Amino acid sequence: MGIVREIAKKSREASYFLANTDSDLKNKVLKDVSDMLIDKSDEIINANCIDCREAEKEGISGSFLDRLKLDRKRIEDISKSIQDVIGLNDPVGEVIFGYKLPNGLTLNNVRVPFGVIGIIYEARPNVTVDCAVLCLKAGSAVILRGSSHAMKSNTKLVEIMKKALIMNEFPEELIQIIPTSLREDAEEMMKLREYIDVLIPRGGKGLIESVVNNSQLPVIETGIGNCHIYIDNKSDLSIEKVIDIVINAKTQRPSVCNAAEKLLIHVESAEKLLPVILKALENKNVKLKGCERTKKIYPAVEIAGESDWYEEYLDLIMAVKVVDSLQDAVSHINKYGSHHSETIITSDYENARYFTSRVDSSAVYVNASTRFTDGGQFGMGAEIGISTQKMHWRGPMGLRQLTTNKFIIYGDGQIRQ
Amino acid sequence: MGIVREIAKKSREASYFLANTDSDLKNKVLKDVSDMLIDKSDEIINANCIDCREAEKEGISGSFLDRLKLDRKRIEDISKSIQDVIGLNDPVGEVIFGYKLPNGLTLNNVRVPFGVIGIIYEARPNVTVDCAVLCLKAGSAVILRGSSHAMKSNTKLVEIMKKALIMNEFPEELIQIIPTSLREDAEEMMKLREYIDVLIPRGGKGLIESVVNNSQLPVIETGIGNCHIYIDNKSDLSIEKVIDIVINAKTQRPSVCNAAEKLLIHVESAEKLLPVILKALENKNVKLKGCERTKKIYPAVEIAGESDWYEEYLDLIMAVKVVDSLQDAVSHINKYGSHHSETIITSDYENARYFTSRVDSSAVYVNASTRFTDGGQFGMGAEIGISTQKMHWRGPMGLRQLTTNKFIIYGDGQIRQ
Repeated sequence: MGIVREIAKKSREASYFLANTDSDLKNKVLKDVSDMLIDKSDEIINANCIDCREAEKEGISGSFLDRLKLDRKRIEDISKSIQDVIGLNDPVGEVIFGYKLPNGLTLNNVRVPFGVIGIIYEARPNVTVDCAVLCLKAGSAVILRGSSHAMKSNTKLVEIMKKALIMNEFPEELIQIIPTSLREDAEEMMKLREYIDVLIPRGGKGLIESVVNNSQLPVIETGIGNCHIYIDNKSDLSIEKVIDIVINAKTQRPSVCNAAEKLLIHVESAEKLLPVILKALENKNVKLKGCERTKKIYPAVEIAGESDWYEEYLDLIMAVKVVDSLQDAVSHINKYGSHHSETIITSDYENARYFTSRVDSSAVYVNASTRFTDGGQFGMGAEIGISTQKMHWRGPMGLRQLTTNKFIIYGDGQIRQ
Repeated sequence: MGIVREIAKKSREASYFLANTDSDLKNKVLKDVSDMLIDKSDEIINANCIDCREAEKEGISGSFLDRLKLDRKRIEDISKSIQDVIGLNDPVGEVIFGYKLPNGLTLNNVRVPFGVIGIIYEARPNVTVDCAVLCLKAGSAVILRGSSHAMKSNTKLVEIMKKALIMNEFPEELIQIIPTSLREDAEEMMKLREYIDVLIPRGGKGLIESVVNNSQLPVIETGIGNCHIYIDNKSDLSIEKVIDIVINAKTQRPSVCNAAEKLLIHVESAEKLLPVILKALENKNVKLKGCERTKKIYPAVEIAGESDWYEEYLDLIMAVKVVDSLQDAVSHINKYGSHHSETIITSDYENARYFTSRVDSSAVYVNASTRFTDGGQFGMGAEIGISTQKMHWRGPMGLRQLTTNKFIIYGDGQIRQ
């Protein structure tokens, strides 16, 4: 048996332990992980230094290296975020619905853990802890497959989490890491349907597409955000409010998935509003691209190519398009968007209704920034990502969304007629 | 553009029409389909005769041919079942949860249609109508990919359904059929992530595994049922009741997925109960297989091989195993079962709790037949199949389970701090 299959098999066996473990016990483990991360900060930083040095030797720098790096402040943040998860309600055991059937059977549809969740991710060691903690609280064993660049850091973090499991008499196999970085091992992981219930890729577009295309396991796609703002012709919002929304959605944190990448505007409003809005964006160092009509109104924009409309820039870049109608805006969003978050600026009731019902995205806003699409902002607590697919769940994947359901039926000898 | 891609693209475009179509209008289409099936029975039967003759020429007979065949009675049954779907509540638009956020945003999580659902199925023309009708009511366009053996029947049925769509000014592309039976066309269908939201294979194990292994689309696995009955040592149920449950679960309709295939019994109860239970099964023409210990107690059983424990017989065959403990029974079920439906016969509270929480199946029963796992029996209405996977939903896939969710957020200029 290969190493990945062996790990997955152990994970499945351990997972049954969590099927009905009390929240208090799970929270105690999380508390210990949170404390031990602080106690063992030096060990973590030492391991992480080796990873970072190796990466630098390979010529890696910039934001990649920045995301790989762990310092005392970041470890404290991770530790604190575990406290937040401890405070969240445990979704396991919730009766989703239930009733007594005419034949006397008592039927309960109950929220239960997935069992085993696989995470495939990039060189961000914080993901190691974030995902393990959320999966554990949601009652599932986790198999982590991180990047080779973060192997030393991840191994140390998993070692610490395993200690917390053992201290609390939980099976240590509830949190496991694939100790290799071979491509074949990731591919093997994507085939183990008997042992892994769901796979969640966390990272960029390339990683997610590779997992979706190669996995035989159910996959939850998260996090690609080519988000749109559409400014309707029927809007009485003050120009200040409109600019606030555009600037906030584009610039408040351009590297995240709920940042806006595209601005669509109705042709009747373009002449009047575009010059001020685009000027404001330029003042915030946003590089502007646009369609021919946008360029006529604001010549500083660079002409956008077809591929721009599909692109998730994750940077201070915005492409602008003048559209002839609300219908055209919605068609454009549904064709080029990534089904993440879109907003309409309007004062028209029917247009708001049309936009919210026809735009095919996880989150659709009226008169607000797209930046709110987030488990915490939505009042759902910590999340493992924003699902942009329609199966299982769309939007923030919080604890409840990391579970499945089960029918439990109590009888006293019923047979089917 | 290939024909499958073309069909799927049209399907996606048509799907937006249903995003917020009133239930009354959808029900009117269904009513017309129901009526027209009766009016056009002759045409359907003629088309079906050609399919059946072709199949016979190819030497096909028995249950395959029986399932392919449509007569007046069967068409009436299909027509009647559409009336049941008309009577079901429309799940689209249900607010799953919602609240006002501290910053004044009003958040609604709303049930919305999937969009486009693909169905891949075998030579059963009734599936053509059943699936199209359920998908339409749930607000989704449907792409049907049936068997070449039923092509004439399916084409006629789709033609009738399209007429009902057109009569009601619905886009006829809401119900489409792949008009070829090329393998490549099915493979193409499994790749069209931009146009199809979810794929549901309906048929035997081979079909389902082929779809799961080859699809890049999210798949809902349904219908494989290697179901278990476990008789605990701590059971005060009368032997008559126990026999009733076993006979009902095994023989009431052996060809369906919720029929029991395996009988496990605690070693302390085996000597006393097995002879009477197995005799009763034999009297119902059930062929018995079993482990060594079963054979010692009841020599008429044939020894079961390792593969028997995995098998879904769908026939009057049952394999019997004596186990040493409740724990062993649960381990056996989780290892060899298909996560469909299992039942424990017990009078012990803790054992019932252990079984229902540890058995990893869609439906877990105490003291009742497994035959109840069904949308209608569970009070959920008509269903498209029983999901045995954990993503999206486990158990009967009724109308509500054929939808997804969407966040709709109403603001008045909110930006993220």
